Amino acid sequence: MSRFPETKSAQKLQKLASRPIDLSQEGSLTPKRIAEMRLSMPGFDLLYGTERVTSEVMDALYELAEEMQALRKMAAMQAGEILNRIEGVESENRSVLHTAMRDQFEEKQSAPVAEEASAMAKRELQKLEGFLSKLEKEGRFTDVIQIGIGGSDLGPRALYMALQAFSRPHRRAHFISNVDPDDANAVLDSVDLKKTLVVVVSKSGSTLETLTNEEFARARFHKMGLDPKEHFIAVTGEKSPMDDPSRYLASFYMWDFVGGRYSATSMVGAVMLGFTLGYSGFSEVLKGAHAMDQHALTAKPRENLPLTAALLGIWNRNFLHLPTVAIIPYSQALIRFPAHLQQLDMESNGKRIDKEGSPVPFSTGPVIWGEPGTNGQHSFYQLIHQGTDPIPLEFIGFRKSQHPTDLQVHSTFSQEKLLSNLFAQSIALAAGQASSNPNKFFPGNRPNRILLADRLDPFTAGALLAYYEHKVAFQGFIWNINSFDQEGVQLGKVLALKILELFKAKRTKEAPASFPLGEAYLKILNEKR
Amino acid sequence: MSRFPETKSAQKLQKLASRPIDLSQEGSLTPKRIAEMRLSMPGFDLLYGTERVTSEVMDALYELAEEMQALRKMAAMQAGEILNRIEGVESENRSVLHTAMRDQFEEKQSAPVAEEASAMAKRELQKLEGFLSKLEKEGRFTDVIQIGIGGSDLGPRALYMALQAFSRPHRRAHFISNVDPDDANAVLDSVDLKKTLVVVVSKSGSTLETLTNEEFARARFHKMGLDPKEHFIAVTGEKSPMDDPSRYLASFYMWDFVGGRYSATSMVGAVMLGFTLGYSGFSEVLKGAHAMDQHALTAKPRENLPLTAALLGIWNRNFLHLPTVAIIPYSQALIRFPAHLQQLDMESNGKRIDKEGSPVPFSTGPVIWGEPGTNGQHSFYQLIHQGTDPIPLEFIGFRKSQHPTDLQVHSTFSQEKLLSNLFAQSIALAAGQASSNPNKFFPGNRPNRILLADRLDPFTAGALLAYYEHKVAFQGFIWNINSFDQEGVQLGKVLALKILELFKAKRTKEAPASFPLGEAYLKILNEKR
Repeated sequence: MSRFPETKSAQKLQKLASRPIDLSQEGSLTPKRIAEMRLSMPGFDLLYGTERVTSEVMDALYELAEEMQALRKMAAMQAGEILNRIEGVESENRSVLHTAMRDQFEEKQSAPVAEEASAMAKRELQKLEGFLSKLEKEGRFTDVIQIGIGGSDLGPRALYMALQAFSRPHRRAHFISNVDPDDANAVLDSVDLKKTLVVVVSKSGSTLETLTNEEFARARFHKMGLDPKEHFIAVTGEKSPMDDPSRYLASFYMWDFVGGRYSATSMVGAVMLGFTLGYSGFSEVLKGAHAMDQHALTAKPRENLPLTAALLGIWNRNFLHLPTVAIIPYSQALIRFPAHLQQLDMESNGKRIDKEGSPVPFSTGPVIWGEPGTNGQHSFYQLIHQGTDPIPLEFIGFRKSQHPTDLQVHSTFSQEKLLSNLFAQSIALAAGQASSNPNKFFPGNRPNRILLADRLDPFTAGALLAYYEHKVAFQGFIWNINSFDQEGVQLGKVLALKILELFKAKRTKEAPASFPLGEAYLKILNEKR
Repeated sequence: MSRFPETKSAQKLQKLASRPIDLSQEGSLTPKRIAEMRLSMPGFDLLYGTERVTSEVMDALYELAEEMQALRKMAAMQAGEILNRIEGVESENRSVLHTAMRDQFEEKQSAPVAEEASAMAKRELQKLEGFLSKLEKEGRFTDVIQIGIGGSDLGPRALYMALQAFSRPHRRAHFISNVDPDDANAVLDSVDLKKTLVVVVSKSGSTLETLTNEEFARARFHKMGLDPKEHFIAVTGEKSPMDDPSRYLASFYMWDFVGGRYSATSMVGAVMLGFTLGYSGFSEVLKGAHAMDQHALTAKPRENLPLTAALLGIWNRNFLHLPTVAIIPYSQALIRFPAHLQQLDMESNGKRIDKEGSPVPFSTGPVIWGEPGTNGQHSFYQLIHQGTDPIPLEFIGFRKSQHPTDLQVHSTFSQEKLLSNLFAQSIALAAGQASSNPNKFFPGNRPNRILLADRLDPFTAGALLAYYEHKVAFQGFIWNINSFDQEGVQLGKVLALKILELFKAKRTKEAPASFPLGEAYLKILNEKR
């Protein structure tokens, strides 16, 4: 298989990119174009007429997907082939089976490895269902605190916030992630511990931040005269140091074939979401994700939403050389969704070597960032419209609001205002505006697209999560990088432990050492040299 | 005055940038370097030994500040000269006097314009102090909802979250910003309206989102049988449509010489923060900001923290050509501070023309993004360490935690773990790590710096806010752009209103129109062509 820049299609794209379509030109952004550059699947439309592509560019992009065997690799991933691997050097050598976590809804032939993973997930789901209905009967708990960091925090938290409107009455979730003691204190202060479950999530059972926060929380329970064993739940790998039923009310398993950033639909998210949404609500999340998994696997390239999104991203990144992507949901409930996507995308595709271990001669994962619209319009949109560097945007919109209550003010509803803003921005960014006042001139040609869904409910949220997982995976497949490991986070951890030792050595009394400015910092440097 | 790229210093810098120091090289990151590349002022240290600069580069950068008259312009700004202006075309033509909002703590000669602004601020502060002490006696209120968007939301919200540990007991703030009806519903559901103040903030008194949300909230109060006039407070410009005492419990003024993104220390933030922190707590915020204003104004270039930060940013942006900046506070309380800085920086410096109205031939404001550490370490740090594009980082750290409660786990305190991680990351990013396994190789040379403060309290938070305001202003001064207007947000607003009209026209019943996909979108395009 050729490397990405050497493919015929990449060379075609290179040529096409020397003169991309000018969307600010009279007559280029036509209604016909908008209508044609639209891809639909049940519940979702992808509208990309405001990207700087032509049908020629799209042809070459789909050819690129073919040459780099994107769909074949998606099939391999979902079948459990060992894709988390770098050839010829020590690497994780694992299957990548987050899709098996939600492959629970139909009888079909699937590869034995995936089938086994799916059965393992089923056992945990059944355990969870039983556990939740027991809790239901006892009625002891109203709140849940999730202690976890990275993938054990961001995805589950984003989903919880997205779906709070669907929470069961009087059930709330809270999150402790940072090792910052102020974070843990603030959360523990805000709940009635007697009625609170604590879900501790760490695959290895040895994540420094998570164990520290667990101890922190346990100390609070003890202080209140409460037995942590009646409140704490473990979500961890089999045989990890946390796999110790004597310390927990319940334990659920996770496996190394589900990466942290892909784990929201595993037990990592399931326990907290099952508690707040109810088991059947959480099931809807799984159904939505599964529907998108099937779509990514079986839809033809030109009908495949996540694949098309991946290709448009590669066009912007590698051919138009745009180094960032802003993801802007026009929904306040998705306020933490960009933070999840930041991890998902940047940790997966922020890589500098290919799957054979050679440095890649092109750019991989962009910087992903974003905030909800219309808030962003009153903030960083200035730079997006009139800054010196174009920023590609991915808008996410919904036809209907979550809450049934909406109010007419000045004869329109809020949801209408939200959508009007979304569509107006998409057009304004692409088309720009002429003006004789240089300060009122908008250059346009800011590439953007809209993913439009019906309503942000549990099914849609699951599908949206999976849409981005597959967009990211498809990009990694095309770049031929390993999107499933994260060696880059190791070095900092090792150095942090060294500095901690200095703190320990320095402290004499039972109080935190005042920070020895320079000293630890310098000493660690000395040690490194 | 020369334009920025034509200055002697810029030409020197250009040459120096062709071979920047290699921090991953044995012997370059020395203890001596770390110790020397440190700038201090009371309460703050700026540590920049991990930036890719040498003393030659720093000399040329300070020369650039001199050539572009950065300090003279800062003095002009604080004296009330009309800096919000583009020569020769219609522009806002205003003074820029957010510093006058907190210039309340010493007798000194200042320019008449600034003095007048400061006196106006003082009158509002006195009104607020009286109002708050009246509330105090009545004891009716426990909660406050701030309704505002952009600068009327982000800065005040970031400060509130930063300082929640210092809130008076049983006083909480909430925020409604987005026009998303789900956002407003969720907040209004979460409080006891009887005990709730609502602060509505809009300088023009005509911000669509804010007025909509105000109506939304008023409807709820009516429904509960409560009189909004007993709960609602206006913060607005004199004679705006909202300047109508008959509808509000109290009214406070803001002025056009304080831009939205610079307004957190004006009445925009003062009412909500005064209520939650107490008036004296909010005063501390003002004192901290004022101390930093004085430092920015009077410290010599080589001792000036925000100026030095600005210059390092220009080195990374214009000479090393790095298009983004990640701001990573190692403090969970600063979780929304990057969102505020995103607006502050990107709306101020996301400009493509200079103050004479000509397009600039260089890059201006970068993309600003960030999340608290250590969380980021379990998320996007993979890309930062091993992605294809270097991302400059600005770390913010504190020697002590806010809460007195900290706990030893595995013989170290949480705050020690937090700081160890911060310093370890700084070193790891700069120095990198050799390895025979290409997947464990860290190229290093990721420029970063640390702003280290003592403890995140109201004074420090005010100073931190002002530090970034001045960093941004200094960069704008050096680029010779207008950092104080935001014409780029207009076009989207105009188009959104057009689309809204279509919604209105289409709807026949008293329910939101189902979104006519394509139709409005196409029609607006038709109208534009």
